[in-house]
Amino acid sequence: MNTLEALVRSFAEAHPESAAHALERLDPGEASKVLGELPASVVGPVVERLAPHAAGAILSRFTPEQTRAFLEAMPPKQAAAVLHHVEESKRGEALAGMPEQAARRLQELLKYPPETAGGMMDPQVVSLPIDLTVQEAISLLRKAPRQSLHYLYVTDRDYKLAGVLGMRELLLAAPRDRIEPLVRREIKSVRATMDREEVAALMREHRFFALPVVDADQRLMGIVKHDEVLAAVQEEAFEDLQKMVGAGGDERALAPASVAVKKRLGWLLVNLATAFLASWVISLFEHAIAKVAALAVLMPIVAGQGGNTGAQALAVVIRGLAVREIVPRAVWKILFKELAAGFLNGFAVAIVTAGAVLAWYGKPALAAVIGMAMVVNMMAASLSGAAIPLVLHALGRDPAQSSSIFMTTVTDVVGFAAFLGFALLFMRWLV
Amino acid sequence: MNTLEALVRSFAEAHPESAAHALERLDPGEASKVLGELPASVVGPVVERLAPHAAGAILSRFTPEQTRAFLEAMPPKQAAAVLHHVEESKRGEALAGMPEQAARRLQELLKYPPETAGGMMDPQVVSLPIDLTVQEAISLLRKAPRQSLHYLYVTDRDYKLAGVLGMRELLLAAPRDRIEPLVRREIKSVRATMDREEVAALMREHRFFALPVVDADQRLMGIVKHDEVLAAVQEEAFEDLQKMVGAGGDERALAPASVAVKKRLGWLLVNLATAFLASWVISLFEHAIAKVAALAVLMPIVAGQGGNTGAQALAVVIRGLAVREIVPRAVWKILFKELAAGFLNGFAVAIVTAGAVLAWYGKPALAAVIGMAMVVNMMAASLSGAAIPLVLHALGRDPAQSSSIFMTTVTDVVGFAAFLGFALLFMRWLV
Repeated sequence: MNTLEALVRSFAEAHPESAAHALERLDPGEASKVLGELPASVVGPVVERLAPHAAGAILSRFTPEQTRAFLEAMPPKQAAAVLHHVEESKRGEALAGMPEQAARRLQELLKYPPETAGGMMDPQVVSLPIDLTVQEAISLLRKAPRQSLHYLYVTDRDYKLAGVLGMRELLLAAPRDRIEPLVRREIKSVRATMDREEVAALMREHRFFALPVVDADQRLMGIVKHDEVLAAVQEEAFEDLQKMVGAGGDERALAPASVAVKKRLGWLLVNLATAFLASWVISLFEHAIAKVAALAVLMPIVAGQGGNTGAQALAVVIRGLAVREIVPRAVWKILFKELAAGFLNGFAVAIVTAGAVLAWYGKPALAAVIGMAMVVNMMAASLSGAAIPLVLHALGRDPAQSSSIFMTTVTDVVGFAAFLGFALLFMRWLV
Repeated sequence: MNTLEALVRSFAEAHPESAAHALERLDPGEASKVLGELPASVVGPVVERLAPHAAGAILSRFTPEQTRAFLEAMPPKQAAAVLHHVEESKRGEALAGMPEQAARRLQELLKYPPETAGGMMDPQVVSLPIDLTVQEAISLLRKAPRQSLHYLYVTDRDYKLAGVLGMRELLLAAPRDRIEPLVRREIKSVRATMDREEVAALMREHRFFALPVVDADQRLMGIVKHDEVLAAVQEEAFEDLQKMVGAGGDERALAPASVAVKKRLGWLLVNLATAFLASWVISLFEHAIAKVAALAVLMPIVAGQGGNTGAQALAVVIRGLAVREIVPRAVWKILFKELAAGFLNGFAVAIVTAGAVLAWYGKPALAAVIGMAMVVNMMAASLSGAAIPLVLHALGRDPAQSSSIFMTTVTDVVGFAAFLGFALLFMRWLV
């Protein structure tokens, strides 16, 4: 091993998180070459800290033997997260060579997508049979891996989750006591299929730092810990931010430009199509614009103001849906509130705009036209900004996905149509 | 007590979280009346689950005696969070009547704003002097409040943080052993002034579920727990989403329309001013538009496409800054990447746009003009979308705050100027 390699190795050993960040910025080919030189024990902690899609890209370039060695060096939870991003065929090859029990456990985990409790859980959970004594429980714990001891779950004879035992209660009890009376029975558990936003809401509400995950028969499958949820809710929130404007939810600031093209271009083209729709609306009023050039000058103000108004409603509603503040029966209340807010803000903005236009062009009719259009468009903007994510949510779609593009379609079309339409109606006072 | 009151009381007792949500939707006056009827022991858990600004508004309507009773029923951490939102004078009155030690503890906490480790910490932390035996430590723990026992921090003779003791090590050790050799010395701690995003990053990186908070002399002040951080990072992320478009970071979907006016109107007026700036740019080209009406029809396409492109870059960079993925030396790399992405996406969109315009108007020069303008504006959009949050961040300002409004100013002005400017240059082939 040369000096540089030794350096990389000691860096990766001491700072797996930073090493993971550094690797994500390399080309996957180069990154896999760097990792290929290092022993599996060093690579494991680094790979489990990579963004799963980066880890998948890197691992896809390994031989099945290498992949297997790395997967075995990782906790099953992280191994499954990485495998979700490795191609199906490569995945099968790697699993085929693993010890049967480990492979079965991974396959079990792979059934649950990463956005569910099952996908986030750690299957390495210690459970104590309920008929133990305190002494027996303690000697069982001596053999358990250290990191699995946050909560001590207790199971009954059918391996069903029976309750939880406090480390403190165990500490303070007499060795020959049975654990059964110490077990707290009222315990929250989550189904493996539960969505991660729901898990996060439950954790936040009850201030747990872990939740047991169970199958349909209440059998203990694993544990979801706070750090997984912490990472997940933050990711989710920023994914919403990015998806709202049609960037990919998982694009990272330091990804190469090619990723930014791949993730963004599709939605830019959708936006282009909607822009042409708005243009077509304008073209219907070409004669009016030819007569009064000021219309062309002023129309982007109405549309732009609508876009901003709509984006505000959009952001507030997307947040409300994500943190589960918005319950189904509140939907009408929110729509009404946004309509009212659109009217009030629209009225205030309309007065200022009309005043400025009067000062600029000295035409009261033009000021009135832009003022009326502003109120109409800001009401449409506020309403559609709230309605679009609510409708997407009701349809079972992602309420954030490109909602900003759909919303500006409404505000552009309504904005131009209202302004130019009112202008046409009052044309005789405008020329 | 009548039936309705009994109902409210049992509801608030069983579901403090839901009760808090329900109260936030009431007028603060009504909410304080409802709470005023209930005993402090029931009110405490509800008030500590209110959004702090709502709790502040409600408590401001109580008498100092009532306020004091509620504050005393709450853990100091939550009491301080609520007090941050109560007027200075009311705050003083309530504190004046409290037992001296409790008042001093609260005043200490109030020094740290809620966005810092000190503002998020729980000062009720159990610490064990390092010279205890295992037996002595256990009997000390017997007296400690249950919820404070996640980690057992150990302090030396000057009350400085010396390390942490595992509950498991304590459980497995002999009663007469000294705890000193069991103490883990390498321990991460955070200063009370550390920003909450940094605390979250540390917690995520090291997978802790709590971090000890220390003062400048390494003396233990409290503990920041995962649930505080979980709530904080999610709040922060959605605040970014809302602030980006000029809605208030703390506006909630179910707040009344008046809040939406108060939080949004200011930025809408700023947006209006920038819209007039863009209009003024258009007005410089009025003659060109009067000659070629198609220019008015097509110009919003260029501006709108720029707005969408810029918003994508904005979202990706705001996320990168918030999760601390963007380090200072990566700034130039990101700007260059966004410029490249703007060029590539711009080129692709320009080709499609030019094709569509050629099909629509049959004028190759018009198609060329819009294509060129599109490339220029999408490069400007991508660059400014990345640069605006980076500059705000470098200036120590919030990178999300209304960045979308600043960005669309650039894309509107550049979009209109580029498109109409190129049109003027090539006017002889357009008419």
